[in-house]
Amino acid sequence: MTSPVDTPAAAPARPAREDDPAFALHRGGKIEVVSRVPVDTREDLALAYTPGVARICTAIAEEPDLVYDYTWKSHTVAVVTDGTAVLGLGDIGAEAALPVMEGKALLFKQFGGIDAVPVCLDVTDLDELVETIVRLAPAFGGINLEDISAPRCFEVERRVQERLDIPVFHDDQHGTAIVVTAALHNAARLTGRRMSDLRVVTSGAGAAGIAVSRMLLEGGVGDLAMADSKGIVHRGRTDLNDAKRRFAEESNRAGLTGSFVDALAGADVLIGLSGGTIPREAVEAMAPDSVVFAMANPDPEVHPDVAHAAGARVVATGRSDFPNQINNVLAFPGVFAGAMRVRARRVTEGMKLAAADALAAVVGDDLSEACVIPSPFDPRVAPAVADAVARAARAEGVARL
Amino acid sequence: MTSPVDTPAAAPARPAREDDPAFALHRGGKIEVVSRVPVDTREDLALAYTPGVARICTAIAEEPDLVYDYTWKSHTVAVVTDGTAVLGLGDIGAEAALPVMEGKALLFKQFGGIDAVPVCLDVTDLDELVETIVRLAPAFGGINLEDISAPRCFEVERRVQERLDIPVFHDDQHGTAIVVTAALHNAARLTGRRMSDLRVVTSGAGAAGIAVSRMLLEGGVGDLAMADSKGIVHRGRTDLNDAKRRFAEESNRAGLTGSFVDALAGADVLIGLSGGTIPREAVEAMAPDSVVFAMANPDPEVHPDVAHAAGARVVATGRSDFPNQINNVLAFPGVFAGAMRVRARRVTEGMKLAAADALAAVVGDDLSEACVIPSPFDPRVAPAVADAVARAARAEGVARL
Repeated sequence: MTSPVDTPAAAPARPAREDDPAFALHRGGKIEVVSRVPVDTREDLALAYTPGVARICTAIAEEPDLVYDYTWKSHTVAVVTDGTAVLGLGDIGAEAALPVMEGKALLFKQFGGIDAVPVCLDVTDLDELVETIVRLAPAFGGINLEDISAPRCFEVERRVQERLDIPVFHDDQHGTAIVVTAALHNAARLTGRRMSDLRVVTSGAGAAGIAVSRMLLEGGVGDLAMADSKGIVHRGRTDLNDAKRRFAEESNRAGLTGSFVDALAGADVLIGLSGGTIPREAVEAMAPDSVVFAMANPDPEVHPDVAHAAGARVVATGRSDFPNQINNVLAFPGVFAGAMRVRARRVTEGMKLAAADALAAVVGDDLSEACVIPSPFDPRVAPAVADAVARAARAEGVARL
Repeated sequence: MTSPVDTPAAAPARPAREDDPAFALHRGGKIEVVSRVPVDTREDLALAYTPGVARICTAIAEEPDLVYDYTWKSHTVAVVTDGTAVLGLGDIGAEAALPVMEGKALLFKQFGGIDAVPVCLDVTDLDELVETIVRLAPAFGGINLEDISAPRCFEVERRVQERLDIPVFHDDQHGTAIVVTAALHNAARLTGRRMSDLRVVTSGAGAAGIAVSRMLLEGGVGDLAMADSKGIVHRGRTDLNDAKRRFAEESNRAGLTGSFVDALAGADVLIGLSGGTIPREAVEAMAPDSVVFAMANPDPEVHPDVAHAAGARVVATGRSDFPNQINNVLAFPGVFAGAMRVRARRVTEGMKLAAADALAAVVGDDLSEACVIPSPFDPRVAPAVADAVARAARAEGVARL
């Protein structure tokens, strides 16, 4: 039905989307599915489709591992979301999340040589989400979970991995954790400290905040306290969800309470993963040679210039226009490429730490205040991470090849 | 655990798979996911991924139809199976079905310009299968159901389509039905008869058998009787499932009972969709100028030479090495391309009949006993089918563009 008020003249002006190069680039989507084999003749069809394909199906039915040899499974990942925590946009739903999943698929191919398929699920109940992911797994060699809200994401990952014999990896958690750990390794090396010398304060107790904090503890930092929106997470608090309560038991040996800013006094490392603003004075109160990772996008919790002026020696952000960009693309393509190369059954903590070590090592002699982490376009990154992850998978007994 | 008897020397010799060109062609799979946009610089990343992609996500969250403009949804289909009825191989499971789904994806792209993603589901419960397909739909503009066993496939298609506003099409049913109907149109034209003049007998009451029979009745054939493994389906039988019972009410006006071969006496058209062998005498007993579609693969129910010798004027099979190959690839690429071009909410009976008419019309003046259906490689086929389907979708009020 149309009515006079619906005429273009009367309607509010639409934003001039195509003036934005991001809209122009996204028109029609960013990825496509193409053939790796010829389909030009009846003979081609008879091999790639019936009757030839029946021989391949029969062979796989008799010997299931052949699915890795004769289908795309060995090099293909599902990028799975329920659209509940998309970038910083929140719960925008499955369809609105699709551009991010397509973007992820681009990065998988470009940096890891991995084929990736966006899977946007219209389901948010935890049990149903787990069941759905398990059911759609057969065509894929790995599951990259993406933009699923905390604390559901922890349980989804744990339960899906329990049910499947392929790597399941929530990138918002572990990708970020690997890159932060690598950058902190190099920041410690640059400033002549061991990881065990460092007292760290993290801000943000969502998927990334908890995973980063956990991996830094596993990676050997001396002490670490994590803050959520109500302040430092400690055993005395009664308002913690399961994930935070478990974390309170394992961290904050100094027994800090109070606000995030209070906890920064004398701390060596600040890791911001929650947005908001960190005042200059809080950075000034940190220990000498402090390390500040301010990763909120697009606005870091503290501007690098301010942090340096307040005494920070190493500053990293999530942005490409400042030095030391902490970007997950440094991790996930190599992690999946390495894990899938050896048909790992899962991604262990040891494999993640190996990825962080390998990523840190790529910096090598280029180490400086402005270079504690490689560029996303450094071609050595993904192969180094993949090799380290594959080796660790074998060492830990989870590799099938 | 290994034991002495597991040594290669003691194991039975493996088949020399790589001597089979089908295995060589399938190594590593037949399809891949590639980028349609550049990802070579930080600027590229900032448009295709963060922060640029957030503007696209926000726009879709505010105006959901934009998902068709700025993602791959408008041209991408999920090829969904549960692996329960794969080719003629039966219930071989989700992973063993993957080579067929990859093959289907090849054909979608090659013939229809449609991107298709294999989705092999490890679930067979009817309710759970329906729920799973509905949940994974958001990233796709259409659902091609494939190789799902009868009679479950009828209910799956009906219920998934009820829940989704995109085309849902079980190719084993409707693809086959469209091509058979087109071929029979031309066979009738060649032999100077109207569809309403024809008495048809179909053998096979699975997905294809029922869909073909139903479409021929809708397409106006005079009378039609369908046989299953127990003989002609008629109202007097007490062993029929729901689908067959409903069909018995609508067909077989002549009230035939008994065997498939009995029913052929005096029939104009034989359509074999079930395998097995049809004796020469049964074809001899058909009416003059009879039409025989013997579509079992790889062995037609009756060899074309035998059928012709027994008096059949037009013979078609599923094989590429005989004239008149009945192949679904003549239908599904154009059906989806046309339906998705106008963002059809479903595929109606009228759209399927329009596809059959368009497919039949491509033959034009080339009509002969050896050419009642075009070659799968005739470049006019998919565009003709797509145009007809898009027009019919608009005419039937299911198009959104």
